[in-house]
Amino acid sequence: MKKAIFTTEISMLRSTMQRLLRRKADTNLTKILRKTHQADVALIMRGLNQYEQKKIFTLCPTAKHKARLLEELDDSIIENVLKFESAKNISKVFRYLDTNDQAFIAGMFDLDKQKDVLSIIEEEDLEEVEEIMSYPDDSAGSIMTKETFTLNQNITVKEGIKKLQSFPENDKIFYLYVLNNKEKLVGVVSLRTLVTSKNTKKLKDIMIKEIQAATTQTDQEEVAKKVAQYNYLALPIVNRQNKFLGIVTIDDVVDIIREEASEDFLQMAGVGKDREILLKTPFENAQSRAPWILASLFGGICAAAIIGYFNVLLEQIIILAAFIPVIIGIGGNIGTQSSTIIVRGLATGRVDVANTFPLIFKEIIVGAILGAFYGFLVGASSSYITKSSLEDLGIVIGLSIFCSMTIATAVGASVPIILQKLKIDPAISTGPFVTTAIDIIGVALYFLIASTILLN
Amino acid sequence: MKKAIFTTEISMLRSTMQRLLRRKADTNLTKILRKTHQADVALIMRGLNQYEQKKIFTLCPTAKHKARLLEELDDSIIENVLKFESAKNISKVFRYLDTNDQAFIAGMFDLDKQKDVLSIIEEEDLEEVEEIMSYPDDSAGSIMTKETFTLNQNITVKEGIKKLQSFPENDKIFYLYVLNNKEKLVGVVSLRTLVTSKNTKKLKDIMIKEIQAATTQTDQEEVAKKVAQYNYLALPIVNRQNKFLGIVTIDDVVDIIREEASEDFLQMAGVGKDREILLKTPFENAQSRAPWILASLFGGICAAAIIGYFNVLLEQIIILAAFIPVIIGIGGNIGTQSSTIIVRGLATGRVDVANTFPLIFKEIIVGAILGAFYGFLVGASSSYITKSSLEDLGIVIGLSIFCSMTIATAVGASVPIILQKLKIDPAISTGPFVTTAIDIIGVALYFLIASTILLN
Repeated sequence: MKKAIFTTEISMLRSTMQRLLRRKADTNLTKILRKTHQADVALIMRGLNQYEQKKIFTLCPTAKHKARLLEELDDSIIENVLKFESAKNISKVFRYLDTNDQAFIAGMFDLDKQKDVLSIIEEEDLEEVEEIMSYPDDSAGSIMTKETFTLNQNITVKEGIKKLQSFPENDKIFYLYVLNNKEKLVGVVSLRTLVTSKNTKKLKDIMIKEIQAATTQTDQEEVAKKVAQYNYLALPIVNRQNKFLGIVTIDDVVDIIREEASEDFLQMAGVGKDREILLKTPFENAQSRAPWILASLFGGICAAAIIGYFNVLLEQIIILAAFIPVIIGIGGNIGTQSSTIIVRGLATGRVDVANTFPLIFKEIIVGAILGAFYGFLVGASSSYITKSSLEDLGIVIGLSIFCSMTIATAVGASVPIILQKLKIDPAISTGPFVTTAIDIIGVALYFLIASTILLN
Repeated sequence: MKKAIFTTEISMLRSTMQRLLRRKADTNLTKILRKTHQADVALIMRGLNQYEQKKIFTLCPTAKHKARLLEELDDSIIENVLKFESAKNISKVFRYLDTNDQAFIAGMFDLDKQKDVLSIIEEEDLEEVEEIMSYPDDSAGSIMTKETFTLNQNITVKEGIKKLQSFPENDKIFYLYVLNNKEKLVGVVSLRTLVTSKNTKKLKDIMIKEIQAATTQTDQEEVAKKVAQYNYLALPIVNRQNKFLGIVTIDDVVDIIREEASEDFLQMAGVGKDREILLKTPFENAQSRAPWILASLFGGICAAAIIGYFNVLLEQIIILAAFIPVIIGIGGNIGTQSSTIIVRGLATGRVDVANTFPLIFKEIIVGAILGAFYGFLVGASSSYITKSSLEDLGIVIGLSIFCSMTIATAVGASVPIILQKLKIDPAISTGPFVTTAIDIIGVALYFLIASTILLN
């Protein structure tokens, strides 16, 4: 019995394949490819350079094998291995791909090549591929599979089983969708119900009529949430007239959930949302990160201008400079906590957008509790830390930390909610933007409090 | 046909239920509960207070209905609604729960209540519940379901179908697991293969023999990764002797993936890993966040001590203080980018732990590219920003930004990898720890560079 391949084994296999690539041991490589699951090969290819990736793809023994590998590969690796492949070769591989994968890959090519590929695609697939390509990116329509199994509501159980037996093997048959004569979705029958019902019964008498469906325009994230929430294995996709068009299956939903989580992580850290950033060259990588750095640069320059403005105060009480890092650091820290909690709550449905005031208020209370605690702590010890004999320094530091932390929670909790209401992805807020805002507010507050208390 | 309930409808339904709760309109509430999917009720209950949650649970029309609701509820809400429920009432509801859910909930109670509940659990379930409770938290054993369907390899297709028909309805039948006479897992048959094979064939002749399995001790995250990677619907769980014990199903895997992502998000923001933090009181919330704030407090105090040490330099060149925020801010920003990319890569398997040096090196190159660019930008404009006439100020600022960003990428990329190698969750590094380290290093570097260049 073959056990699951674990991470260390993937690394070992990668080293072996790299060694064989260097030695140009093509026969051995093909032998390994024949024995290894394409999902594992896809993982291994992430660690190879573009030339090696292309070579591995070429060495796959059959067009079918190549198709199974394409299904598992990252987008940028697909682009790389197919870049110089002729339209004819591509169409050979396409024969083994679902129409939604064909549509997805064809969408990657420039228009000329796309036309070439579409022109030699199998006749029976072309219409479906063009249909799927016509739906907006990230919509249910663009990810649905058309390879599914439908039955008319008026046939009997016996006829249903017979039809199922003549349908080509496909492990994506989760439910049997039942349509009326106008191809509208009217019910669903599980394989198990079909097998365990009387042969003479009609499908319309055994089907479940209360079914949930999404339309082709529904956002893929919304589809994923529904499937996860109700523990479905697949969700049928219909058009506005309830005509059955295809299904989105749970394995695609798993991919969507993982991808969306990755994108949210990167967004929140201010890296953009390119999941494949690890596969980029340092220069491309720097390019996609540069704009996000600008936010903190802007904040830093504002802070510099503010501190410059207070230079007379600073000249008199030089020790104030020492506490700049702790005040903006601790504010940034708690503000990031707040925005992360809210952004994640919005993503998982734990935050109710209609009723956010209590939530923001609660965050502010948390900020005040922690601000009072840490403000007192740092304030009380500030003279010891800097060996300063300045009276009232502790009060300035403590009060500034308290205010900075309280305001940071308010900003951190509100910004994602405001962005969500403006229909902007709230994840982008949690990265540089919230900390930048808090940097500026923190510094300004600190010097205002200091000049009010110390210059009297 | 019932359509999926979307977010706005959930909010509306919540307001309605809150109104009915205030009016004590119990009959109306029960009517609503009867019509609403328990997954939706679970979402709604997140926005209710503890008293309201308990009331809704009590109003569910049947024990079966309560069981379906418990399956969907968050852990802390389950604890709340069952807190004052008698062991007898709990056991009535338990009859409708899978043994893994029974084990999970029983594990929440204190030992006394646990004993009470286990003592009146159904005889046939008790052994399974106790077995599942004996596996470590977050292991495959602790989340597996025992309610599954197995067949002996020597029976025929016809006998198999008959057995299936007599098995109580259960939508968790994804595959039929085939065992030998010693209850060891030897193969798997899809429902479809069973239905479409000749009646007289034996299962051992139609089963797939190459199957992947996990053991009860396998980490649940590892199970989730396998299921997602190979597009399985379920993974069988065996003991060390390959005896079949149960399965982990894809709907549980979806939950694991979502939960792990949420935990990683919170860890990375330095909030601990309590997914239900939004359900906590402000004081509990502050308690679980306080320790993570300490990290940035520590960093801030170190920075204060460093700046205090350079107070003679600072007295002479007061304008240096103005650039403290930009230098630590921009370093923290790019360092967080690096650590997020690596942490996420480790979580999704994109980072190969065996070969991390090129990765860290690439991050450093990115840091140097962006450091050179932004260092030049801020350095060149520093005199304008602060209207300072100090020569060489631009060089100090530019060089400090360059060094700070380069080192920040090195720290940001290395820390998670080191933690991973030490078998500590790398997600905890990306929050306060990396930024704190970068704060300290950034300030120290800045003043060292300034004193070297400006005091000559």
